[in-house]
Amino acid sequence: MVYEPLNPSFAEEIRRSFARQTIMALIGAELTRVDPGLIEITLPYRTDLTQQHGYLHAGVVTTIADSACGYAAYSLMPAGTEVLSVEFKINLLRPAKGERFLARAEVIKPGRMLTVVRADVFGISEGKERELVATMQGTMICLRP
Amino acid sequence: MVYEPLNPSFAEEIRRSFARQTIMALIGAELTRVDPGLIEITLPYRTDLTQQHGYLHAGVVTTIADSACGYAAYSLMPAGTEVLSVEFKINLLRPAKGERFLARAEVIKPGRMLTVVRADVFGISEGKERELVATMQGTMICLRP
Amino acid sequence: MVYEPLNPSFAEEIRRSFARQTIMALIGAELTRVDPGLIEITLPYRTDLTQQHGYLHAGVVTTIADSACGYAAYSLMPAGTEVLSVEFKINLLRPAKGERFLARAEVIKPGRMLTVVRADVFGISEGKERELVATMQGTMICLRP
Amino acid sequence: MVYEPLNPSFAEEIRRSFARQTIMALIGAELTRVDPGLIEITLPYRTDLTQQHGYLHAGVVTTIADSACGYAAYSLMPAGTEVLSVEFKINLLRPAKGERFLARAEVIKPGRMLTVVRADVFGISEGKERELVATMQGTMICLRP
Repeated sequence: MVYEPLNPSFAEEIRRSFARQTIMALIGAELTRVDPGLIEITLPYRTDLTQQHGYLHAGVVTTIADSACGYAAYSLMPAGTEVLSVEFKINLLRPAKGERFLARAEVIKPGRMLTVVRADVFGISEGKERELVATMQGTMICLRP
Repeated sequence: MVYEPLNPSFAEEIRRSFARQTIMALIGAELTRVDPGLIEITLPYRTDLTQQHGYLHAGVVTTIADSACGYAAYSLMPAGTEVLSVEFKINLLRPAKGERFLARAEVIKPGRMLTVVRADVFGISEGKERELVATMQGTMICLRP
Repeated sequence: MVYEPLNPSFAEEIRRSFARQTIMALIGAELTRVDPGLIEITLPYRTDLTQQHGYLHAGVVTTIADSACGYAAYSLMPAGTEVLSVEFKINLLRPAKGERFLARAEVIKPGRMLTVVRADVFGISEGKERELVATMQGTMICLRP
Repeated sequence: MVYEPLNPSFAEEIRRSFARQTIMALIGAELTRVDPGLIEITLPYRTDLTQQHGYLHAGVVTTIADSACGYAAYSLMPAGTEVLSVEFKINLLRPAKGERFLARAEVIKPGRMLTVVRADVFGISEGKERELVATMQGTMICLRP
């Protein structure tokens, strides 16, 4: 889908907001794509981000998917607003293996107040096809001052 | 609900498994209650765990809720099995404010293969009533060797 | 939880609205309890409401749970507003067997705009304990004119 | 995605199973496409299928989406098995208006036991573009005798 952003400086504001999400620095996540209605966040695997079997913890998978969803929604919101997650649901499709992970979020239905977003999280390893490890469907809210 | 555990050493195995979840150490989460079908995880607030407004990031809220759900399910599984998250859905009810956070998970419906679990996450501050900041409903799977 | 309704005639308006939900008459559902933040809908089993094995279809289970959630939320909304379902998630815990079914919805978190609600659906047979067949967690929105 | 069915007579079995879902006849739903991993169900609007404002009730939207998801998963399961819904989550994106409705489900991740499926429900009116009214993400289970 092609969306027309309402806020001409959406990309800068998303980068600025992402930089204030301190958890992103803690886990080593980076904002790697910012387009209207489409956000990508990349996270290299680290041994201190895992569950009991050494795979990326579902909560970390969710953390990058949720931020990607939030900013995908935010990219279509007017200037001067804020975004918060209302709810999301995630299916963990495979063990989260990979050298790095990519969360890609796309807006399904923008709204004045509520925006519905989907995110896929892929595991990526050199010389291998990317694998879909999780898929999220969520609702984001636009807060006006 | 009162459940009879199938695995007499469920509590030790949960503690051991939790200790292998490296993300728990990274964010500072502790396993503070282990009962059959009921798990609590506690997390002190830290400024490096936040989203853009300084509240606990929804992904961190989810991380402790998901681990609590997984171990609540695991506490009722037979010895020699493993637990994984199939899916969960979380509603973020309020900004996640507090000096610390408590995720409490309880099994709703145990099963041979699939167990359905609910978790509430509370924000706690001295001298204040605890506030429900999120509620999760999820499905955990029992993997047999 | 005990809630104080904002709309003194919430019960009549819910009954009136329920009577306009034509699908309720088609499937034979009745509104059997209307309290602030708590709604019950009852549905007798019928052989024309089933899935392929003769159990109540998950969609019918969902239909009564969703209406119960909507009216539980609506019972706490101000006069002159409307309620719509934003989203819900349901876990089907057991085959939906029973002579009749009871959907009970309770508000978890009321809000000016968004209200989060949970519903349990029970299968009931004479001389047997009621069985929890499904549990729903959803978000309802208050529309102002 | 292109999937190779394990059961050569999947299409006949789905049609036979659908015919036993008595709720489909009650609401007037028809199975209009059966392909490996992809199912469509069509439902003409009727005034006895509505919520309080005259739109298709969210439970009816869910009913056709859930059956489409179940059969999309079932189309990839081996002969001699059964399918049941484990859980699903649906976002209601717009009021369900239309002369008829189309639920299209596609398998995202098939599995030996659990299959994850997505369904979109569209509202269709003559001379108008189809409108996405809801989107579902769910988990189906394969039961072996």
